Amino acid sequence: MAAIRRLDSNNAGFQEELEALLAWDSVSNAEVNSIVDEIIAGIREEGDASLIELTAKLDRWQPSSATDLEIPHQRMQQALEAIPSEQREALEKAAERIRAYAEHQKMNDWSYTEDDGTLLGQQVTPLDRVGLYVPGGKAAYPSSVLMNAVPAKVAGVGELIMVVPTPDGELNELVLAAAAVSGVDRAFAIGGAQAVAALAYGTETIPGVDKVVGPGNIFVATAKRAVFGQVGIDMVAGPSEILVVCDGKTDPEWIAMDLFSQAEHDEDAQSILVSSDGDFLDQVAAAIEKLLPTMERSDMITTALEARGALIKTSDMEEAVEVANFIAPEHLELSVEDPLTMAKSIRHAGAIFMGRYTSEPLGDYCAGPNHVLPTSRTARFSSPLGVYDFQKRSSLIMVSPDGADTLGQVASVLARGEGLTAHARSAEYRLKVKK
Amino acid sequence: MAAIRRLDSNNAGFQEELEALLAWDSVSNAEVNSIVDEIIAGIREEGDASLIELTAKLDRWQPSSATDLEIPHQRMQQALEAIPSEQREALEKAAERIRAYAEHQKMNDWSYTEDDGTLLGQQVTPLDRVGLYVPGGKAAYPSSVLMNAVPAKVAGVGELIMVVPTPDGELNELVLAAAAVSGVDRAFAIGGAQAVAALAYGTETIPGVDKVVGPGNIFVATAKRAVFGQVGIDMVAGPSEILVVCDGKTDPEWIAMDLFSQAEHDEDAQSILVSSDGDFLDQVAAAIEKLLPTMERSDMITTALEARGALIKTSDMEEAVEVANFIAPEHLELSVEDPLTMAKSIRHAGAIFMGRYTSEPLGDYCAGPNHVLPTSRTARFSSPLGVYDFQKRSSLIMVSPDGADTLGQVASVLARGEGLTAHARSAEYRLKVKK
Repeated sequence: MAAIRRLDSNNAGFQEELEALLAWDSVSNAEVNSIVDEIIAGIREEGDASLIELTAKLDRWQPSSATDLEIPHQRMQQALEAIPSEQREALEKAAERIRAYAEHQKMNDWSYTEDDGTLLGQQVTPLDRVGLYVPGGKAAYPSSVLMNAVPAKVAGVGELIMVVPTPDGELNELVLAAAAVSGVDRAFAIGGAQAVAALAYGTETIPGVDKVVGPGNIFVATAKRAVFGQVGIDMVAGPSEILVVCDGKTDPEWIAMDLFSQAEHDEDAQSILVSSDGDFLDQVAAAIEKLLPTMERSDMITTALEARGALIKTSDMEEAVEVANFIAPEHLELSVEDPLTMAKSIRHAGAIFMGRYTSEPLGDYCAGPNHVLPTSRTARFSSPLGVYDFQKRSSLIMVSPDGADTLGQVASVLARGEGLTAHARSAEYRLKVKK
Repeated sequence: MAAIRRLDSNNAGFQEELEALLAWDSVSNAEVNSIVDEIIAGIREEGDASLIELTAKLDRWQPSSATDLEIPHQRMQQALEAIPSEQREALEKAAERIRAYAEHQKMNDWSYTEDDGTLLGQQVTPLDRVGLYVPGGKAAYPSSVLMNAVPAKVAGVGELIMVVPTPDGELNELVLAAAAVSGVDRAFAIGGAQAVAALAYGTETIPGVDKVVGPGNIFVATAKRAVFGQVGIDMVAGPSEILVVCDGKTDPEWIAMDLFSQAEHDEDAQSILVSSDGDFLDQVAAAIEKLLPTMERSDMITTALEARGALIKTSDMEEAVEVANFIAPEHLELSVEDPLTMAKSIRHAGAIFMGRYTSEPLGDYCAGPNHVLPTSRTARFSSPLGVYDFQKRSSLIMVSPDGADTLGQVASVLARGEGLTAHARSAEYRLKVKK
């Protein structure tokens, strides 16, 4: 039986309880930092030699040469052909929907011309080369390959390079099949901090990339943080979370299962339900009790619900929305009668799942929107992964001779105010009446 | 006389020379890291008390209480009224142009509805609260206040909080005036890593924010990197750079002055000229010799040009474009006859200044586009600061009962393939024919 925590917004100390519930410090520890720094230094100095040595040691298989590290393209295609057709069709359907949604996110060039002929705007270009980290072992998720790779290809990234560790030399067929479906260009059987370092700095065999994306364990996350600046990175993700806001009129078993779907990820995953209907919270608690013994991952779910789960009672649904905005959840389910109206009051959330039929797992796999979402309250300032993460902008400025005159006078005053006289004189050279 | 380096793309070893010229390692050193970690821990534990103590020690003035740390709004307005009208008008003109350009960058909600009634899209919201770091002392640039603050306000940020150190208690009037012009909501006289920590975690007096932007020294940059995750940050900037691509037909003195305008920033600033016209490079070298003695910051310029400057000869202008794409410069001047056509071949640059009249300093102050740009080759994967950095997206998913049926079947197959049965069962509950 899972002793899930109950909070009530009317209790004194509610805000403190809520903050304690959400507390998550993502800071890496010093020991991991120093191991990762050493691995990065090794890859930068020794390249392939270091990569082979670390792969033998950490993944327990011995590449005979650096060529062994590459997973040939035809191997991915072969995996796609070998998996059951039901899985292949599901992967292809999901990829198609992720692609259709991603097309809506593409940024385009824009510019405007002022009366004096001065042109201003932005030019949008894709990244040349991107590295995609895919975890090995139990956390190897083919859906994660689709969610990272498809937007990159829609953006027009020139070369998309996947890295995936193969512990004991074992390849994950579904991951390879997903790579084939989503257009991964090259793949390497490497993992951990060493794979991130190889992508960031390049080795004789691994091409250096411009950005590294994808989830990973603490070593991968720490390595990404360390190479940030040398290359771009996506967000460093914390544990997965769901917040369900319910008016009490959805089947309690549906809601219990939605809470389980986060809790089964890992011990630190967070599942919270908020409702103004106290009886409904009791019903969901009962549904949790009833369903938990039937779950394959009941131990994991119990641990997560007890450690970080909660059922929260608010005075009304407006207050439930306030709680949601404070939590700024990765996944927000609005299981209410008029979710479109309620969504307009949501200021912070990674993804908003609206209505009783929109279960969160649909978003994880195939609805279309990305499942790489800001965790740990970072939806306050960040966004789902998207095509825009694989494009960048360059400002465009073309000043006419008239524009150089009027703007040059303003720039001259401000530059001299800052004591930057070369700036001022560069602008003054282009004035009609020289200073 | 400045001994500026000459490179030639026809020489063996050109690529290695170019890479050596660009080499810049932004990694913070261990000593700075540990000082910054200690400061952050102090602010988190002691709040205002630590902030007052560090301000007294590092900025050499003693706040009598935490209230002393705030610079009242009327003090900013007072500065705006006190500065010379020429400067006030220049600030207002610049702010107006930055605002007009920024309006073009605003992201909007979008959505589409599929045949079965399923709605997908993204909702865009501004950040609640943003912190703007403004350096004190010699690097206090009012233009930097405008460039960071205006896009934030255009985005609709609820509260914009400026921090600016006041060494020896001295306020910079132009910075305060720029804050008034650009709509800064509150300001505090604090700086260094302690100001970044206070913004990230909040103290009794300083409100915690959702994102910290703005330039700063190594301590500020290291602190921003350390608090990333707790709050969002903008890029961690390296030294400023300009790359001028010229066909040899612009006045050599104009080009020399454009190179100076970067070099005068600091010793590490980088100024590079690329041309296929060797005679023109000689003329620019001569102009540098001639003009250098007339420059207020000639020592700084000489140091920077000798340390990191270069005149590069290429075989033709196509090769000059290749060099530009490899360098991925912060500022790129295309001082050529048909810059619009050439710009289409540019894959990586922070800002592209097109034509002989578009001097880079116009972009620094008042053309409209942001002067906060990716440095140190990071234009390969990042973009100018913009309104979009103060907005974020939430995915919108509202699945119809029909959609829940078709999508649920796909999700069920993929979730079971990943061993996530709670995910599968959550989707299966919403199927028309229950599994």
